[in-house]
Amino acid sequence: MPATILDGRALAQRIQAEIRAAASECLAGRGFAPGLGVVLVGDDPASAMYVRMKRRACERVGIQSKASVLPGSAAQADVEAAVRAFTQDPAIHGILVQLPLPEHIDEEAVLQEISLEKDVDGIHPINLGRLGMRGRQPSFTPATPTGVMALIREAGLPIEGMRAAVIGRSNIVGLPAALMLTNANATVTLCHSRTRDLPAVARAADIVVAAVGRPEMVKGDWLKPGAIVIDVGSNSVPDPASKKGYRYVGDVEFASAQAVAGWITEVPGGVGPMTITMLLSNTMEAARRSAASTAARPQ
Amino acid sequence: MPATILDGRALAQRIQAEIRAAASECLAGRGFAPGLGVVLVGDDPASAMYVRMKRRACERVGIQSKASVLPGSAAQADVEAAVRAFTQDPAIHGILVQLPLPEHIDEEAVLQEISLEKDVDGIHPINLGRLGMRGRQPSFTPATPTGVMALIREAGLPIEGMRAAVIGRSNIVGLPAALMLTNANATVTLCHSRTRDLPAVARAADIVVAAVGRPEMVKGDWLKPGAIVIDVGSNSVPDPASKKGYRYVGDVEFASAQAVAGWITEVPGGVGPMTITMLLSNTMEAARRSAASTAARPQ
Repeated sequence: MPATILDGRALAQRIQAEIRAAASECLAGRGFAPGLGVVLVGDDPASAMYVRMKRRACERVGIQSKASVLPGSAAQADVEAAVRAFTQDPAIHGILVQLPLPEHIDEEAVLQEISLEKDVDGIHPINLGRLGMRGRQPSFTPATPTGVMALIREAGLPIEGMRAAVIGRSNIVGLPAALMLTNANATVTLCHSRTRDLPAVARAADIVVAAVGRPEMVKGDWLKPGAIVIDVGSNSVPDPASKKGYRYVGDVEFASAQAVAGWITEVPGGVGPMTITMLLSNTMEAARRSAASTAARPQ
Repeated sequence: MPATILDGRALAQRIQAEIRAAASECLAGRGFAPGLGVVLVGDDPASAMYVRMKRRACERVGIQSKASVLPGSAAQADVEAAVRAFTQDPAIHGILVQLPLPEHIDEEAVLQEISLEKDVDGIHPINLGRLGMRGRQPSFTPATPTGVMALIREAGLPIEGMRAAVIGRSNIVGLPAALMLTNANATVTLCHSRTRDLPAVARAADIVVAAVGRPEMVKGDWLKPGAIVIDVGSNSVPDPASKKGYRYVGDVEFASAQAVAGWITEVPGGVGPMTITMLLSNTMEAARRSAASTAARPQ
């Protein structure tokens, strides 16, 4: 029996419907819409596309979005000032800095300008530190791995005690996904380019998260039968049959993997829609907390 | 052939001799001794003993130490003020807050009072966040896992590509050890109380770091022949044959493990002396950086 599809698009729609209801209630009851501030530096087409997609998604659910677009030549102080302006803006509840920033910008210094309560991408160095630590809670968890966790939970199996292999150790996906799976009491092996016999490591895992950016690297015979397979990759490959001349594939070879896995995500339609949805969900939650703390303030 | 002992006491003595020479040079050339400020809250006998050991070790190498000892009933503000006083004291180059703090104290808020350049135990939330992240460098790495890494390197084998199992996910040992091994390009599995079939996970590993606090839990038949075994545990067990009525054992059953492993640490005499030495080494380095930044300042 081929693997059951974990449908990121359908799950995202369900969650976005809840966010839309909550945002509308916020506007009616509290008189304000949740607000997301996005900082984009430079004119990388992929980054610009992600920012457009986020703006449209905000519109769909009733979150107001503002964008600060700076030229690629912007100085460190200008980028920090753009973030600081959102931190000080009471109409903005969540801040997203579109990564990567240009080479000459000190990324960590920029991210530290995000106030913890507006850090809806969970990317502030303190939030990332807290993510891994026992007894500490980040104010928000990063959007992509949060979406990964939500998709894994859709399989309906207890994560506790499962073996997991996370392939790729990026700051925004692989590392935080490994920490979140560990927090859910999985036993996690964090794999990367220097890992020897990666297929054997993957085959020992009940959960495989592929976040490495290599088209169709993970094959069906790398998988334990019945495993949960989450494909974070989104790689454009030449496709003469397509009008655009290319198409997107994941880090997993879908056909061979689906024949072995128990659950699997598709590309597109898996992690992608969930990433943006988790950002919206965190922004809604930030607005809710902001309203609660205002209400609790003595008059 | 039984495993070669990785001798923490001998390695610690070599490194402490280097620190002593550097501290003496600092005093002669720069006119000041490196300074360590220790904050101890409450009267836990083990914590008090560790603080005494650190003070004596400082004396041995020519580092000046100051201690702020607060009662277990101290208020949050008092503990933070004690840390802040060391942060502002130009004679103090490194700050250590002895953990655990009493239940009623917000640990993270206290640790955030340590300035990054004096965080010689690498425990500031930002430093822990940086430790796991690609392209970021903590100002210092935590003493115990830094000692663990130094002992692993004594085996003289390339860590890159090795499989490692870290048993225990504490904030001050297991988690940072897993991150540091990943940074050294090992493929790390982080194990904990919910890990299923822990012996099988350990047997797949070229490096086993046991930091779980359970006397002699790791047996020889849990190990891959030739593995490097680092025992962070220090557990007191009843011993009627000893004058004190107890003795210390590690998390590894030494005799059975030594018969299988390639390299192994003893308890005591393994990780313990290295932890304190790495703290001294970081304090010396903090003093060196402080002198360099003072010298570089325009007159």
